[in-house]
Amino acid sequence: MNIDGQHYQTIWLKPDDSSVVQTIDQRILPHRFKIMDLRSWREGEFAIRDMVVRGAPLIGATAAWSLYLAAREAETHGAGVITHAAERLVAARPTAVNLRWAVERVMQALATAKDPAARVEITRREAEAICAEDIEICRGIGEHGVTLIDALSQRKNGEPVNILTHCNAGWLATIDWGTATAPFYVAQERGIPIHVWVDETRPRNQGSQLTAFELAEQGIPHTVIVDNAGGHLMQQGLVDLLLTGTDRTTRTGDVANKIGTYLKALAARDNGIPFYVGLPSTTIDWDTGDGVGNIPIEERAPDEVIFVQGLDGDEIRQVRTITEASPAKNYAFDVTPARLVTGLITERGICPASEAGLTSLFPERESR
Amino acid sequence: MNIDGQHYQTIWLKPDDSSVVQTIDQRILPHRFKIMDLRSWREGEFAIRDMVVRGAPLIGATAAWSLYLAAREAETHGAGVITHAAERLVAARPTAVNLRWAVERVMQALATAKDPAARVEITRREAEAICAEDIEICRGIGEHGVTLIDALSQRKNGEPVNILTHCNAGWLATIDWGTATAPFYVAQERGIPIHVWVDETRPRNQGSQLTAFELAEQGIPHTVIVDNAGGHLMQQGLVDLLLTGTDRTTRTGDVANKIGTYLKALAARDNGIPFYVGLPSTTIDWDTGDGVGNIPIEERAPDEVIFVQGLDGDEIRQVRTITEASPAKNYAFDVTPARLVTGLITERGICPASEAGLTSLFPERESR
Repeated sequence: MNIDGQHYQTIWLKPDDSSVVQTIDQRILPHRFKIMDLRSWREGEFAIRDMVVRGAPLIGATAAWSLYLAAREAETHGAGVITHAAERLVAARPTAVNLRWAVERVMQALATAKDPAARVEITRREAEAICAEDIEICRGIGEHGVTLIDALSQRKNGEPVNILTHCNAGWLATIDWGTATAPFYVAQERGIPIHVWVDETRPRNQGSQLTAFELAEQGIPHTVIVDNAGGHLMQQGLVDLLLTGTDRTTRTGDVANKIGTYLKALAARDNGIPFYVGLPSTTIDWDTGDGVGNIPIEERAPDEVIFVQGLDGDEIRQVRTITEASPAKNYAFDVTPARLVTGLITERGICPASEAGLTSLFPERESR
Repeated sequence: MNIDGQHYQTIWLKPDDSSVVQTIDQRILPHRFKIMDLRSWREGEFAIRDMVVRGAPLIGATAAWSLYLAAREAETHGAGVITHAAERLVAARPTAVNLRWAVERVMQALATAKDPAARVEITRREAEAICAEDIEICRGIGEHGVTLIDALSQRKNGEPVNILTHCNAGWLATIDWGTATAPFYVAQERGIPIHVWVDETRPRNQGSQLTAFELAEQGIPHTVIVDNAGGHLMQQGLVDLLLTGTDRTTRTGDVANKIGTYLKALAARDNGIPFYVGLPSTTIDWDTGDGVGNIPIEERAPDEVIFVQGLDGDEIRQVRTITEASPAKNYAFDVTPARLVTGLITERGICPASEAGLTSLFPERESR
């Protein structure tokens, strides 16, 4: 997608220097746009650990590119560098499923490598393939999801379709297009007018800081609201569609996503508004049924609740909003039961949020 | 209630100098505790306009005390000062119902005044009466509300009762005790163990900045959470009671309160958790039925969403969290339909959130 009128993906090999992988430093968005050079696997590990990059697909891709950088180092320092890097990379964000998946995929491909040059070639090919496949999956979610927006647009006689989204399941979390946002960008391509309500998404403000940035740079009409406002907007008929991403969807269609999604899903149901979830099929957890009972919810550092980052003049600062006399807790995700989800948008199509729905799209998973 | 171990109310006449009204500067809580002297009605008007004081009951009391200060000025400058002050005070926060009510009450009482000294005496008496009555009402809400907490405590065999509250309907919004918080403080008095989940309450953070401050100073166990977290807590059985205040309750029991209350009410219903609302009967709007359709929702300045205030080292700063490329909207309240409200706690007792419920407590309002 675009930043300042120029097309970007979230991670790429530097065109004129294949010893450098480049990515966008997401820690300082939207206040600063800065490209970061990754010159070694350790810099890749740092980028994952310190959340220079975030979002499951991008974390996976960054790990794959880091193994490519490790393979280059291994040309002079020996193949042990790669094994060591793989271990360290997997540990950088322990709960990120895609991270382990990407590392294992690259390591498996490496098993056939005959010499150091082949290792460089194979890791590069795998990193490129992981990125290309992710783009294709997201584009697929966009193609299927836009049919929902198109139908709403026709029902509104071309008036802008109002879509509420929570957190950032945007292109910045993937390689391009995003998951929940892909239908927005495809709608724009096709000239279907939309307006997006962007939930701030406390505590890390990925909505007001990342989704809003994406939409502004892409020229899509949008308005930032606090997380508290969505229910009122739905009551007043100002939302036509609730559309989010997900970190993990159970076999039965329960959706784990950024904390607060469940509250919006309740409001959507109370007001007869459809709630769809965009997801790559890689995030379906075929082994888990009841999500509310079985998905462990990560508790993150209270500092994310206590401190807020923003711009003060030209300085990026963090201010403390809660005194030391009051403890805070920081639950990162919640689970929306399938009964509140109208449908799931995958790269293969749209289905009801149920085991029957999911296996209709993924028949190879049936009778497991 | 207590601050730093000492008992305070939110507004009072300076003990050794009756030319000065004192109040707490709530703009810089919880980071600084500063008492502000109001030496003229203009300083009282400033305190209301600039939100040194907030909360309907406290705004009303501040206006009454400002008229007392005006009456003192009128001893040398003539009674016109009082009329002028009354006009200006009512305009300081146009949507605050209690403000107009308090000013009209004092002005009516003044109609019997024979001379400048009587005006001073009457305004002082009315301001004191308004404060005393508010304390009595809040204490009454506390006495009735604590019966709910006590029942939950017994069901839990004395384990702490987990109460979730939104915004600040605390003593800082009234003269003492608060509305939603009064049952907490009475529970503490009676040795009933409670733990309060404090919603941050974006955009103005009255939860994390005022309610958390109150509870910390009073020594009541509490934890600050982002507004997004309440649904997850309820799903996981970590909330026994949802208890908030309200700005306006319709005859039929619909509750207008700080934006986000409706979302919590939906989650309470979805998880079978009781939702009670504490309110002084003065905030019942007997002329309005359907709240969702008929209560106009104030839209405030987007800057409250865009900027966040906090402490950076020793400095109180505001940081910009959203770039200028993204617009924001700031709806201040939402309406929770009566069907989601388990009951209303008033100074006369607890009743169902319905016209029949309310008129059972306030029979003089029937057949209007």
